[in-house]
Order: sequence, then C-alpha cells, then structure tokens
Amino acid sequence: MSRPVPRRPQHHKINKDLFVLTYGALVAQLCKDHEKDEDVNKYLDKMGYSIGTRLVEDFLARTCVTRCHSYSEITDIIAQASSHRNQPQVLLILWKSQQVAFKMYLGVTPSVTCNNASRNEFSLILDKNPLSEFVEELPTGRSSLCYCNLLCGIIRGALEMVHLTADVTFLQDRLKGDTVTEIGIIFLKQPNEKKYRRRK
Amino acid sequence: MSRPVPRRPQHHKINKDLFVLTYGALVAQLCKDHEKDEDVNKYLDKMGYSIGTRLVEDFLARTCVTRCHSYSEITDIIAQASSHRNQPQVLLILWKSQQVAFKMYLGVTPSVTCNNASRNEFSLILDKNPLSEFVEELPTGRSSLCYCNLLCGIIRGALEMVHLTADVTFLQDRLKGDTVTEIGIIFLKQPNEKKYRRRK
Repeated sequence: MSRPVPRRPQHHKINKDLFVLTYGALVAQLCKDHEKDEDVNKYLDKMGYSIGTRLVEDFLARTCVTRCHSYSEITDIIAQASSHRNQPQVLLILWKSQQVAFKMYLGVTPSVTCNNASRNEFSLILDKNPLSEFVEELPTGRSSLCYCNLLCGIIRGALEMVHLTADVTFLQDRLKGDTVTEIGIIFLKQPNEKKYRRRK
Repeated sequence: MSRPVPRRPQHHKINKDLFVLTYGALVAQLCKDHEKDEDVNKYLDKMGYSIGTRLVEDFLARTCVTRCHSYSEITDIIAQASSHRNQPQVLLILWKSQQVAFKMYLGVTPSVTCNNASRNEFSLILDKNPLSEFVEELPTGRSSLCYCNLLCGIIRGALEMVHLTADVTFLQDRLKGDTVTEIGIIFLKQPNEKKYRRRK
C-alpha cells in the first residue's frame, strides 16, 4: 500500500490546524471504539511507532546530510558510540535530534533534561503542545487518556530504527492539570555490539 | 473538551509528512475496525465534516478580513447572494475560496470547473493530492475505499457552515487509476431567503 517517505519533497509545509483537528478526530474515533483509556493509549502509541519508523529516515536525511551520506551511516555512528559506552556523544546526538525533530515537525522546541546519574533517562519538556492546542480538558470519564500518546510512539519508533530501545511515556500533561507537558524517555538496553561490527 | 480554533496562531505551519502519515494511520485504523469500504468512507466523511465546521471560521477570518469583519458577515453575504439567485457572485466566492483553502491547508491549488448549465455542479481537480503522497495503491480487497474522503467531509462541513448544503464526492481518484483526482460538488438547495432577511 505504501511507499517510503521521499527525501526532499518540494512543498513540505502545511497548515497546522488541519493536522491538529484531524488528530482530534482520530482520538475521538479511538475513544468511541475502545472503552478503556489504556486501550486508546496503546493504539495511539502503536500508530505513532509505525509513523516514527517511517519519519526517521526522512528526518535523518534532512538533518545529517552534512555529516552522513545515508541512513545506515547515522545508525552506525549511534550504534558504535553506544556500544563503546560513549554515552555523552550518544546523548548529545539524541538530545539535539529530539529538539530539531520537534521544531521541524511540530514547530516547537522542547527543553531536554537528564533525569538520573546513569544517564539513561531523560525528559523532553514542552511549554506548549501544539497537538492539544484546541483541547481544553479531557473528555468526561477519560481521566487516564494520554491524548498525545502518538508522540510517545513516534519517538519510540524513531529510536528503534537507530537500534535504541526505549520506554517513552508522559510524565506530566497540561491536559491533566500539570504546568508543563513532559515526555520521559528511558533507554532500556545497549544495542548488540556484534551486530554492528558485522555490518561494516 | 474542545475550544474554537484561534484566529491567528503564531506558528501555523508544520511539516506535511507528519500529517500525511498520521492520516494514513487513521485510515488504516478505520479499515481494521470496519469490514465494508462504504463504512470507512462514511466515517472519514463524518470526521471531515466535523473538521470543516471548525476550520471554516478560521479560514474566513484569515482570508476575508479586508472585506468582512466577522464570520456572520461573510455567511450573510453568501446567503443574500444565493437567495437573490446571484449565482455568478456566489460561484465566484466559492471557487476562489476552495482554491485558497486548498492552498492554505494542503499546499496545492486545484483547478475549478463548472459541470452543468444550471451551475450548481462543479469540480475541484487536483493534479497532485498531498494526502495520498505516500500511498502507491489501495490495500488488497479495498477497491471501493475513498482514501481521502476526509477532504469531501471537510468541504461539506465548511459549506454547511455558510448555509450551503452540498453533496461532495470523489469523481476521479489517482489511487483508482485515474489520471487526476477530481472532487465533485453538487449544491442541493438554495438557502431559505426568509431566514436571512430576519437576521438583518
């Protein structure tokens, strides 16, 4: 059914409102189809994952062209750095990437913080979340709904494509009364070193 | 749950790919939930209708500010012109609006043709449809799916909000082997003249 995201489409900007309202329609549809908030959250995450795996190649092509020639080259760079426990380099690439990606796809730049000493947990903090711009509050009886869970799935999918497995969840949500929206990312394991050696 | 679309958001452009892939995920979800293509088409139209009713105010606010001061003013202008059978004026407003709206929200400009002598049927012809940019063909067994039916719903909803009832359907679709994508619009009735007289 589908073909890969082209590297440099001519007109790559559209009006945000159409996307935000379409996303709202998608969430409303899922709420109709599934009684439990947890099921809606899972679906949004799953959809986002699939989107993330497709967006990442386009993202890397646009942002890493000065340094890398191909998608496999950037995944190798991250994989090598990770496998040699070069955490600061990996984190720097990832932090910067998340910021650039949010700016590129949603028009906002999150701040990034590291949450623990072993440096495998960090947070993206959004003062403003465009995806829930027209939403004042969660629907009645939907207090556990993670309205923007698609974003978690997208990040998870994109990281998976550069061979980094992560747990991505909302830690704070303005729709639930928090002052900011915070997405927490925990890296679950290091990639298999041998796998990348074989690819050289 | 929701609030009105704000008139002039600061950053109103986002990357198209994210929207197009999210829309793909929405259609895939509906295909999972509904066996019949007709049911998926209906859902997309219904969702689009709801989006159209919300987008129209923002659209009119952005495009008609030099001439009108409010949403109700533009609906009155269209209603009055329609009720006095001033078809050329109504058509001119509508044709131009559709072209501007497509350019504003999807980044493409359709050509517009009138299809009959009584001038209540016209077509929007798109050489390129951004919404199906990453789709090569319809999924197996989904030959009656109108993949982009959300667009028909959006147009129908937007027209309804300016008191014009219309039937909006795909007449040609590149995903079904046609050379262009053509959306047909048939105006079903004239608005009630008395209603608008009363509002003056």
